[in-house]
Amino acid sequence: CFIYSLAFCQDGQKGPLIDHAEGQRFLNDTFKVIMEEVLSKGADVKEKVCEWRDPAELRRLLDLELLEDGQPHDHLLQQVKEMVKYSVKTNHPRFYNQLRFLTEALNTSQYTYEVAPVFVLMEDVVLSKLRSLVGWSDGDGIFCPGGSVSNIYAMNLARYRAFPQVKLKGLWSVPRLAVFTSEEGHYSICKAASMQGIGLENVFLVKTNESGCMLPEDLTDKIELAKSQGAVPFLVSATSGTTIHGAFDPLDLIADICEKYGLWMLLGGGGSVLFSKKHRHLMKGIERADSMTWNPHKMLLTGLQCSAFLLKDTTDLLKHCHCANVTYLFQKDKFYDVSFDTGDKSIQCGHKVDCLKLWLMWKAVGTRGLEERVDKAFFYTRYLVQEMKKKEGFQLVTEPQFMNVCFWFIPPSLRGKQNSDYYQERLSKVAPAIKERMVRQGSMMIGYQPQAGRVNFFPMIVHSPQISEQDVHFLLNEIERLGGDL
Amino acid sequence: CFIYSLAFCQDGQKGPLIDHAEGQRFLNDTFKVIMEEVLSKGADVKEKVCEWRDPAELRRLLDLELLEDGQPHDHLLQQVKEMVKYSVKTNHPRFYNQLRFLTEALNTSQYTYEVAPVFVLMEDVVLSKLRSLVGWSDGDGIFCPGGSVSNIYAMNLARYRAFPQVKLKGLWSVPRLAVFTSEEGHYSICKAASMQGIGLENVFLVKTNESGCMLPEDLTDKIELAKSQGAVPFLVSATSGTTIHGAFDPLDLIADICEKYGLWMLLGGGGSVLFSKKHRHLMKGIERADSMTWNPHKMLLTGLQCSAFLLKDTTDLLKHCHCANVTYLFQKDKFYDVSFDTGDKSIQCGHKVDCLKLWLMWKAVGTRGLEERVDKAFFYTRYLVQEMKKKEGFQLVTEPQFMNVCFWFIPPSLRGKQNSDYYQERLSKVAPAIKERMVRQGSMMIGYQPQAGRVNFFPMIVHSPQISEQDVHFLLNEIERLGGDL
Repeated sequence: CFIYSLAFCQDGQKGPLIDHAEGQRFLNDTFKVIMEEVLSKGADVKEKVCEWRDPAELRRLLDLELLEDGQPHDHLLQQVKEMVKYSVKTNHPRFYNQLRFLTEALNTSQYTYEVAPVFVLMEDVVLSKLRSLVGWSDGDGIFCPGGSVSNIYAMNLARYRAFPQVKLKGLWSVPRLAVFTSEEGHYSICKAASMQGIGLENVFLVKTNESGCMLPEDLTDKIELAKSQGAVPFLVSATSGTTIHGAFDPLDLIADICEKYGLWMLLGGGGSVLFSKKHRHLMKGIERADSMTWNPHKMLLTGLQCSAFLLKDTTDLLKHCHCANVTYLFQKDKFYDVSFDTGDKSIQCGHKVDCLKLWLMWKAVGTRGLEERVDKAFFYTRYLVQEMKKKEGFQLVTEPQFMNVCFWFIPPSLRGKQNSDYYQERLSKVAPAIKERMVRQGSMMIGYQPQAGRVNFFPMIVHSPQISEQDVHFLLNEIERLGGDL
Repeated sequence: CFIYSLAFCQDGQKGPLIDHAEGQRFLNDTFKVIMEEVLSKGADVKEKVCEWRDPAELRRLLDLELLEDGQPHDHLLQQVKEMVKYSVKTNHPRFYNQLRFLTEALNTSQYTYEVAPVFVLMEDVVLSKLRSLVGWSDGDGIFCPGGSVSNIYAMNLARYRAFPQVKLKGLWSVPRLAVFTSEEGHYSICKAASMQGIGLENVFLVKTNESGCMLPEDLTDKIELAKSQGAVPFLVSATSGTTIHGAFDPLDLIADICEKYGLWMLLGGGGSVLFSKKHRHLMKGIERADSMTWNPHKMLLTGLQCSAFLLKDTTDLLKHCHCANVTYLFQKDKFYDVSFDTGDKSIQCGHKVDCLKLWLMWKAVGTRGLEERVDKAFFYTRYLVQEMKKKEGFQLVTEPQFMNVCFWFIPPSLRGKQNSDYYQERLSKVAPAIKERMVRQGSMMIGYQPQAGRVNFFPMIVHSPQISEQDVHFLLNEIERLGGDL
């Protein structure tokens, strides 16, 4: 932590390492590169998404070596340009979102009011506003470095609520614990269970239906199975918008089961859907969850990282579970209300002021503007699906519920051959072949994967406001062009 | 994760939420605010370090509310200015460091080569260079969101090496474990132990000497104590440059003990000292550690966050311990060498490209430039101590070893009264009173704290290149001015 750094100022004109004018010129030049190459060109359809190079070749093209001596202005600027050139263009002309530069410029770590007065208050406003969308009039929360860490928080709090002695005495003081998530749930739940000493074998994977939604009856069965093995269930992780199929777990039914067995209900994903009056029914029952992992850096494109962990609890569980009460940060004899010193809620020392990214965008476009973004993403997903169905070579894996569109491209040579014994084998090679061509040509960037007995397909996510009718047609035509001869 | 986002581009001129020209103008205006208010004024000695307001008042001054409708350009820009005004100025004219804007602009999450080709290679170069400073010709590593998370990595790996079954079966499959760190060690070790299910009571705090260095004989005693209680020691966390006193634990002696008992030796802090040929002897024995937590965002001021976790292991422990092998990220049938897909080493999904911040600064000033920074920080710490000793009202808590200078200011009314019964009581109120005055006047920002029976003192850290002779005198004079009447 920076706490005791001497934060006062000096004359910038002296010292061999800081040439003020030269530094300013470099920063200005770099800002120009950011504006022109990253933001404007990166948003130009005529530009490639990536300029693919194999690792060995890319290493030759970039001058990555760190040397004994510093490099001059022009060489550094050239390096910056090369870096931009060979990076994947994730940007679109979302200028308001670029305000995350301000987060970096202020370089603030948030743990006490005195070091981050503005952001302590701002985080409070943003979290409270997000909670009210969930349907909680009160509660708690914190911004985390990514959704995986938010899930770690949830698992730790759920365990602490059920067995507070774990904090002091460790897991040896309690019976074997059990966690539940669906087969389609995010793998960060497994990583968290492993890291928290619970173990992968104590994560019970609940079956899903064809569309990828958790089956409540199987959840009950798995809970009973765990209990019959002597394990104590304490957490169910439900998902709104699973990673692959974008499936929405049935929250009300899961909440019923959690209430019956006294389990913590964690909800991951989908948060931004709550902005949409039209679509928020997909998350009906959400207010019954105990905590929620919400990643505005996904659907709202606030820029990485911006992940909120929201909590219904009003008993200061977050602080009790994580506090270390170190005297050098959280003195009781401070001259202001120390309840504003929120750093001890964190498993980190301080945390970045990621709330600013969401706050500024929200302030700029309003709740209404965010709603429009979400509705637009739903609209274009449906448009893509509709256009896909008109074409011969495209086959959906499941009917999309969210922004995820999973599909196979069937090249002409395989159409109508579904019953041949070579069909699956050859179809499995189509997506990788198209993917390689699109990356090498830099025209698009989508992934592929096999899943649950299904051979390689394209799992796509449509984010607003990144897409238009024109883009949808480009996508479909481009896949036909790249895979027509396979 | 963003993996399947449709990363191709659209014409930026359309859509109600994206007005390209307006957005560009706003970003340009904000950049001006960053340059003028944050970087230049923030570096001006005539400006306040903070513009203190109580929480209630600050809430009134800022327009934090999030509304249904978006706000216009001028209002937003005004908000940005207010935000800057009331935030603590952490900045100095370190323009090269501001290149972290580029990290934000590229908005890349690093988990596979195909999504972050430049940064996968760059992280590799930076980690390897840092390892070579430690003295490891081979090894592994990853950039983490802060030192606390790096320590979580170390504890998880150490446990996995000792008891790989924990990953699958949880802590119930192994005996009670024990962790060791000094009484001066960073509290993140306790937070990590609690979160990983080991429990605070299984963190044994080893005694330190007067200067804050771990006592090796007490480490042996504590290990034997743990064993006598039936616990199994597996990890010793040593520190180079403790948080408060900047103490250096005796690494060679600790390494001897770790070798004898077969324990993982984690080293936290101090990494940047290794750049200095003159001072790296403070960390003699470091190459015998198993892992190291290195935060260039501290002494090298790379900007938050930039924290490297370095590892001596060459058996791919990081991957084995953390891998989830999810098919949608890490396909085996990719068209390039998938050993470059490093994401599965992380407990997160992807991680930010924080390596860029250090790389660019290193490239700009060279290894030699970084060495000069470190040496300069040592120089000015010694200068501060020397000047302090010349003055009557200042008393060092311990003789500084690193950048940390812990001291009491003894106001005239207390000088020579060391033996009165009210002395300690009244001295304990001096630092808080001076602190309140400095914050309200915005002249400086340093903390205070009690520790180990010592009443409130100032624990200061001198970072290069933030300080000059002139600043040292300002600091001492300012404290005399603020506390002269107490």
